[in-house]
Amino acid sequence: MGLKTKEEYIESLRGMNPTAYMFGQKITNVVDNPRLRAGIEATAATYEVAEMDEYKDLAVTQSPLIDEPVNRFTLPPSSIEDLVARVKLNRKLGAYVGTCHQRCTGLDCLSTLSIVTYDIDQKYGTHYYDNFVEFLKYMQKNDLTANAGVTDVKGDRSKSPKDQDDQDMYVHVVERRDDGIVVRGAKAHQTGSLSSHEIIVLPTRAMRKGDEDYALSFAVPADAPGLIHVVGRSSLDMRELDGCDIGNIRYSKYCPTLIFNDVFVPWERVFMCGETEFAVEMVVRFSSFHRQSHGGCKSGKIDCMIGTALTMMEYNGTTKAGHLKQKVIDMIHRAETLYGCCLASSYEGKQEPSGTYFIDTVLANASKIHEGKEMAEAIRLMVDVCGGFVADMPSDRDFENPEIGSLVKKYMKGADGVPVENRIKLYRLAEKLALESADTISDIHGGGSPEAHRVTIFRETNISEKKYAARRLAGIES
Amino acid sequence: MGLKTKEEYIESLRGMNPTAYMFGQKITNVVDNPRLRAGIEATAATYEVAEMDEYKDLAVTQSPLIDEPVNRFTLPPSSIEDLVARVKLNRKLGAYVGTCHQRCTGLDCLSTLSIVTYDIDQKYGTHYYDNFVEFLKYMQKNDLTANAGVTDVKGDRSKSPKDQDDQDMYVHVVERRDDGIVVRGAKAHQTGSLSSHEIIVLPTRAMRKGDEDYALSFAVPADAPGLIHVVGRSSLDMRELDGCDIGNIRYSKYCPTLIFNDVFVPWERVFMCGETEFAVEMVVRFSSFHRQSHGGCKSGKIDCMIGTALTMMEYNGTTKAGHLKQKVIDMIHRAETLYGCCLASSYEGKQEPSGTYFIDTVLANASKIHEGKEMAEAIRLMVDVCGGFVADMPSDRDFENPEIGSLVKKYMKGADGVPVENRIKLYRLAEKLALESADTISDIHGGGSPEAHRVTIFRETNISEKKYAARRLAGIES
Amino acid sequence: MGLKTKEEYIESLRGMNPTAYMFGQKITNVVDNPRLRAGIEATAATYEVAEMDEYKDLAVTQSPLIDEPVNRFTLPPSSIEDLVARVKLNRKLGAYVGTCHQRCTGLDCLSTLSIVTYDIDQKYGTHYYDNFVEFLKYMQKNDLTANAGVTDVKGDRSKSPKDQDDQDMYVHVVERRDDGIVVRGAKAHQTGSLSSHEIIVLPTRAMRKGDEDYALSFAVPADAPGLIHVVGRSSLDMRELDGCDIGNIRYSKYCPTLIFNDVFVPWERVFMCGETEFAVEMVVRFSSFHRQSHGGCKSGKIDCMIGTALTMMEYNGTTKAGHLKQKVIDMIHRAETLYGCCLASSYEGKQEPSGTYFIDTVLANASKIHEGKEMAEAIRLMVDVCGGFVADMPSDRDFENPEIGSLVKKYMKGADGVPVENRIKLYRLAEKLALESADTISDIHGGGSPEAHRVTIFRETNISEKKYAARRLAGIES
Amino acid sequence: MGLKTKEEYIESLRGMNPTAYMFGQKITNVVDNPRLRAGIEATAATYEVAEMDEYKDLAVTQSPLIDEPVNRFTLPPSSIEDLVARVKLNRKLGAYVGTCHQRCTGLDCLSTLSIVTYDIDQKYGTHYYDNFVEFLKYMQKNDLTANAGVTDVKGDRSKSPKDQDDQDMYVHVVERRDDGIVVRGAKAHQTGSLSSHEIIVLPTRAMRKGDEDYALSFAVPADAPGLIHVVGRSSLDMRELDGCDIGNIRYSKYCPTLIFNDVFVPWERVFMCGETEFAVEMVVRFSSFHRQSHGGCKSGKIDCMIGTALTMMEYNGTTKAGHLKQKVIDMIHRAETLYGCCLASSYEGKQEPSGTYFIDTVLANASKIHEGKEMAEAIRLMVDVCGGFVADMPSDRDFENPEIGSLVKKYMKGADGVPVENRIKLYRLAEKLALESADTISDIHGGGSPEAHRVTIFRETNISEKKYAARRLAGIES
Repeated sequence: MGLKTKEEYIESLRGMNPTAYMFGQKITNVVDNPRLRAGIEATAATYEVAEMDEYKDLAVTQSPLIDEPVNRFTLPPSSIEDLVARVKLNRKLGAYVGTCHQRCTGLDCLSTLSIVTYDIDQKYGTHYYDNFVEFLKYMQKNDLTANAGVTDVKGDRSKSPKDQDDQDMYVHVVERRDDGIVVRGAKAHQTGSLSSHEIIVLPTRAMRKGDEDYALSFAVPADAPGLIHVVGRSSLDMRELDGCDIGNIRYSKYCPTLIFNDVFVPWERVFMCGETEFAVEMVVRFSSFHRQSHGGCKSGKIDCMIGTALTMMEYNGTTKAGHLKQKVIDMIHRAETLYGCCLASSYEGKQEPSGTYFIDTVLANASKIHEGKEMAEAIRLMVDVCGGFVADMPSDRDFENPEIGSLVKKYMKGADGVPVENRIKLYRLAEKLALESADTISDIHGGGSPEAHRVTIFRETNISEKKYAARRLAGIES
Repeated sequence: MGLKTKEEYIESLRGMNPTAYMFGQKITNVVDNPRLRAGIEATAATYEVAEMDEYKDLAVTQSPLIDEPVNRFTLPPSSIEDLVARVKLNRKLGAYVGTCHQRCTGLDCLSTLSIVTYDIDQKYGTHYYDNFVEFLKYMQKNDLTANAGVTDVKGDRSKSPKDQDDQDMYVHVVERRDDGIVVRGAKAHQTGSLSSHEIIVLPTRAMRKGDEDYALSFAVPADAPGLIHVVGRSSLDMRELDGCDIGNIRYSKYCPTLIFNDVFVPWERVFMCGETEFAVEMVVRFSSFHRQSHGGCKSGKIDCMIGTALTMMEYNGTTKAGHLKQKVIDMIHRAETLYGCCLASSYEGKQEPSGTYFIDTVLANASKIHEGKEMAEAIRLMVDVCGGFVADMPSDRDFENPEIGSLVKKYMKGADGVPVENRIKLYRLAEKLALESADTISDIHGGGSPEAHRVTIFRETNISEKKYAARRLAGIES
Repeated sequence: MGLKTKEEYIESLRGMNPTAYMFGQKITNVVDNPRLRAGIEATAATYEVAEMDEYKDLAVTQSPLIDEPVNRFTLPPSSIEDLVARVKLNRKLGAYVGTCHQRCTGLDCLSTLSIVTYDIDQKYGTHYYDNFVEFLKYMQKNDLTANAGVTDVKGDRSKSPKDQDDQDMYVHVVERRDDGIVVRGAKAHQTGSLSSHEIIVLPTRAMRKGDEDYALSFAVPADAPGLIHVVGRSSLDMRELDGCDIGNIRYSKYCPTLIFNDVFVPWERVFMCGETEFAVEMVVRFSSFHRQSHGGCKSGKIDCMIGTALTMMEYNGTTKAGHLKQKVIDMIHRAETLYGCCLASSYEGKQEPSGTYFIDTVLANASKIHEGKEMAEAIRLMVDVCGGFVADMPSDRDFENPEIGSLVKKYMKGADGVPVENRIKLYRLAEKLALESADTISDIHGGGSPEAHRVTIFRETNISEKKYAARRLAGIES
Repeated sequence: MGLKTKEEYIESLRGMNPTAYMFGQKITNVVDNPRLRAGIEATAATYEVAEMDEYKDLAVTQSPLIDEPVNRFTLPPSSIEDLVARVKLNRKLGAYVGTCHQRCTGLDCLSTLSIVTYDIDQKYGTHYYDNFVEFLKYMQKNDLTANAGVTDVKGDRSKSPKDQDDQDMYVHVVERRDDGIVVRGAKAHQTGSLSSHEIIVLPTRAMRKGDEDYALSFAVPADAPGLIHVVGRSSLDMRELDGCDIGNIRYSKYCPTLIFNDVFVPWERVFMCGETEFAVEMVVRFSSFHRQSHGGCKSGKIDCMIGTALTMMEYNGTTKAGHLKQKVIDMIHRAETLYGCCLASSYEGKQEPSGTYFIDTVLANASKIHEGKEMAEAIRLMVDVCGGFVADMPSDRDFENPEIGSLVKKYMKGADGVPVENRIKLYRLAEKLALESADTISDIHGGGSPEAHRVTIFRETNISEKKYAARRLAGIES
């Protein structure tokens, strides 16, 4: 028990036996599958940095619950400092792994439950908060990683859960037993579900009376019987399987669809079951936390893209091109506005009745709207600065080919004095940063789609105060 | 002594006798000139809110220097809380006055001097900090307003101060006497100089050896002999003089050019004189503080524009138009990203050797870049939502005309139940918010032109860290 | 008869006696009112260029109707070449006057009527086309200017014309007589109505059964009894009245609200009366023509702003600043995409049953959407390049003041060798180009508000073709 | 001889024997390699449409040179109509193949040579134009496809060709023989080089005195000895090799690096050799033609993305979401402004001395700048509308898996009544449209990088005319 090293974390995953499929085949050794491993390594980085001097202060903190040092990713924020540290650690990790480290979603769930289970108990006299606290102790003591099972597959979007032709389009209770419940449904975009020890499920939308079976939150181990991880495709997935032209030589991201094919959940792992009016609170809390997590790690990813762009300028011999420097500044500007807005939402956080701290919703959502548009622009700018070989560069296998290898390398030469191998490697990284769909699509849809962020800031804004300000200056009595 | 009421502030200006011109005429009664008065009222609001329950906590604070309550606009930040309160107070005031309140620049100067005079003394054994502290006590004890004399007229922009054909293009010392110095030159865009008791001068750019006469900082009363305020034109200035169709019925902004026609400054009011290498520090500190001030008040101005847009939708009968609501959300998004980034630069501030706190430069400048582009967009969105009568609405004089008044009013009717007078007033406000050049041009050029903000974030960013992150992920040794 | 000179045009206006008010006062001499004259001069430029070698080929063309040379602004396009010439002439004139020349709306009405009256007659056996042809001959033979009375004041936007509390919110027939009709209502934003000989009225929206009295088109002289021109306010209007700090020393724009206070229209001047289903066709034709007119003249206005920006760089000594050159390129890019898209809509035009040519609606509306956003950006870029004195520059009266004039001028010096007067004049022009609300608000709302342009391109696009293309590539049978 | 059918075209490629490598392996059967075949099919579509009623009029035209019907992609434009038809055909093909058809570059080269070889001969009395005409006859009579060898690998970008450490960084003459020349170097991003019969080489930049060996243009068969095609990587390349989850089931794009390893070129195939001052003309002509080609086909690709977005809304049950419809309108707006600007550059074309028509350079480059930014935005909008499954969707192999297939399909259900297979296929297409790097990177860098387009519009714009317009309105004499 206690903090795990990176190696201990990876070994702990070997001890699990999840049901997983990829490209139509069952995966029996998750840890050594190169595609999944690249994702596991990204999560492993969250363990690694907890031992590194540069990051330790941000990554390790004292749990008031178990009174031991824990990894920040198992600690619901108990102060403004904790809220702030989330963002700073995420930015550092975003730059460190150049992709998604995949451990924020679990923390976002723990933080949400730490607020909402308490509120439900206050209203209904239930014991979800106790369940949650026990679960949290277990997570902290064992330094575990959890995954957020939030996004239901949703079926026909124009219909509510119980109006669907197929009632399983949202995860729901199909059986209530003395010892627990049986659940069915599927969650999409389960980033890092096979890198996780636990899957935490929250509802994906507001529920109304009649939706009781869908107003559901619980946790199960990632290898619970009936749970099936189907690893989805991403643009560059086969590069990792193939072990060639990978780009980011250390880390990657994968996102299964997770099928709950009648999975049993004991009552002590249930955190909500039927209290429909709290579904919306779970969604809003989680999505706000998660949209904010993005602000941290994505500004870190832009840092990495800025580094790529500037280094490529050196490798290409274009450091003196003023217009390229302007584009790098445009990238910095995007990283900082995203980071700043996200950071402010931490500093402006407030304590909830359970004692946990919650961020400022408007600022958190504003930062995610910003990300949705500006990450795409930051990527476009990086590609513009780097040049055309972000696509079409010959394969490392071509460079290694005895007949043509030296010839191909000869023509990949850049600035004098720069080893051609470095330039080739950097172009591969740029390609990965720009074109890995598991990352780029999440810039847009991660934490809910853009319209959700927009609706949120409108709902949470103090409209009447603003209208009063206008009327007063116009001289309108009212 | 002590905090002034709004009325005492206005009376205190009556006691001054500045040399002022507008439209070629000498202004002898500044306070009762309707154009200048509208600006004075905006500054007066900073005194007014200090007495209002809603704002008092932000606006009044305890000075560690004089150990008395002071208006925040006379207090160099002595804590993170002070840095944060700056932004929040500016946002509140921005919404309250719907324009520039014109008192932030003085605070930005005081804050800058509070850092840099100390640093100069540390290096040179000079006594600028003592001078400054005495001056600050005077400002605080009398609750005075100061103006920032920063932007020199600059002459030929391709030349440094001393290479200009006319040596007066940057304010400089023309005579050193036992009791003080005589200075000459001109400062442009002196927002609210006639609403101020004191003019604080800082250099506008970095200086080099040989520029000693230009490396200059001091303070003089706004009515010092030789000081000439020439009030410049702004787009809607004659509306205020004419007393008709004003829009914002309470407040406005005006910006003189300030000519130092051989003005004497006693040594005790000199804060730098010849220490060329500190000129750049003064500029960077001041402009960063001031760019951040913008982030606060301009997000407040957007609040006011959002209120205008939403109220106009009610007045026009367009509240159900989904596309207009989307545009309002776009406005909210801009207000919040601007505010968030600006706020973060406060929270991330650090203490300087003198004890004063300084903001995070990158975040402050990033927020100003954001303002430069996004304020224009927020205005465009407000105009889009409000409709075409932001221009071309008949004058109040037409509405009052006995022959056509009732007819013209009849046709200005909007949604049923809304008094037509209210709709007319609100359109006038929208016109003022969108088209007052004293405000809108400052969105772009205030605190230095956009390129200056960009250069700053590039210079202050940790480039090598970002490049290392990229190389590591690409697998490049170095 | 025949083509009028600029002087003859102005004299012809002297012969009219319209009822006009401005700022609550009746205007008896329209032509010599400096504000109105500046607008009249802009329209006069359309007469002037018809005599200038550089423009003549575009501006003068042969009328197939009267078989005489006519000014292009009286000729409904009878070929693709005519459609193209519209755009090219508008661009040239936009750069020539640096504002709106105000004669395009009349042509847009004539072009619309030339199509739709024919279509109505085909369906109903009415004689509107004959009425129109006679009217057109009169316009062409006398080289007259017409104004487009399209935008009704609209009242409560959530209600249709006949559901309004006040039935006069849309211009309608209040009496049908043997010799004609009597109409009542008001039209807003009547650019140049006092520079026009004739007012042509078209409906502003689609009409339905029951709206017969509102499905109305006709023409009346600008001085018809009962017609009242109430000149609205624009941001810089008093500068012209005051004769000082005008900026564009030659031209300007003004936009009355036009009240039809029971105006009699003889039947031979009625072009539609009750054929409700053709109202939408009139609106769509007119607004598409007019949105396209904008694409021409506004790209010409950007040309003028580019010239201002580049000249100001010379005057300020900033010609070597690479970032400013980039901004000028951004302006050129906007001018050309706007122009190109608009031009294409002419080249892709088609002949209608009446023989008149109509533009491509999608391209015309796409160019207007582009204008709505990009003109604001082009202005922002110009202001960025020019610098802060776009606001706040002292008045010419200050420069002329004997006490401070030479001092103020001294400090307005820019690059060596540039007369300071030129720099001052150019800043005034930049101010006018950036801040004249009669122009800038029209960039957004002219030709209908942005949402109208958007709805149009969606409705007119071939959706099923695009969907088929996607399904085919995805391998979806259907 | 004469027009080839699609099948004849493919067969003709079987008759060639190019030296090709991919992923380190020699490709002996180009035509049946699934990745290359998908590209060949896209080019084959240009043959197929020449036989289809819907496209024939655009795709087939009469050659004045051989007086026979030819495919438009072998005809240098001999009229404005030809210039226009280029754009329209490219748009149609862009929507038809949903990617790059890869045959435009050859036409852009032929068009360029048709102008510049004539100009060189006029100056030097050389016979390049004769060589070219013979070559063109051969291309037309055999309905061949050519590829544009323009983009040299460039080595150190801060150095000119002959200053490079390795003199081979730009293709150059290494030996002059009686019967021809021997050339060495490499060209990057050779879209469709293995789908081509001929490779046409043009210089990639301006040349100066001393660069004679680099001022070079010629044509060689794609299987010329010494010519090595090294097929580069693109993001989704392995999908095609793997035959699974392809998305666009018909077409794709690939881009080799082409190495000229001492390739012999007979004199009759040489079109420029040493006339350094004409290198820039070749580049400017070619790149302008090619930037314009993009405007056509990319607006066609957006058409296909619009169809995807709208169909996905039906499949997801989101057709009533107003905000999604707004995003589709934003996509239409981008397609049309791109198309319109590009089309205008054709209509505004002019005849060159050789008789060939050339487009308007400013409009063509403006449209490419627009593409560089707006294609990325159009893609982002499509992804936003489609939803998160643009990434992470399980593989077709998962759907086919007997254990989990039906379960996975069950959860991919969308709107009632839509076969789940269709939804899955459409998401795959969206993924391909959004994430195929061979396409998306070319949106930015195709036809030269963005800065090149910008420099071009600045250089080609009439600056002095614009400056004069500003001075005249400001009242500045000069």
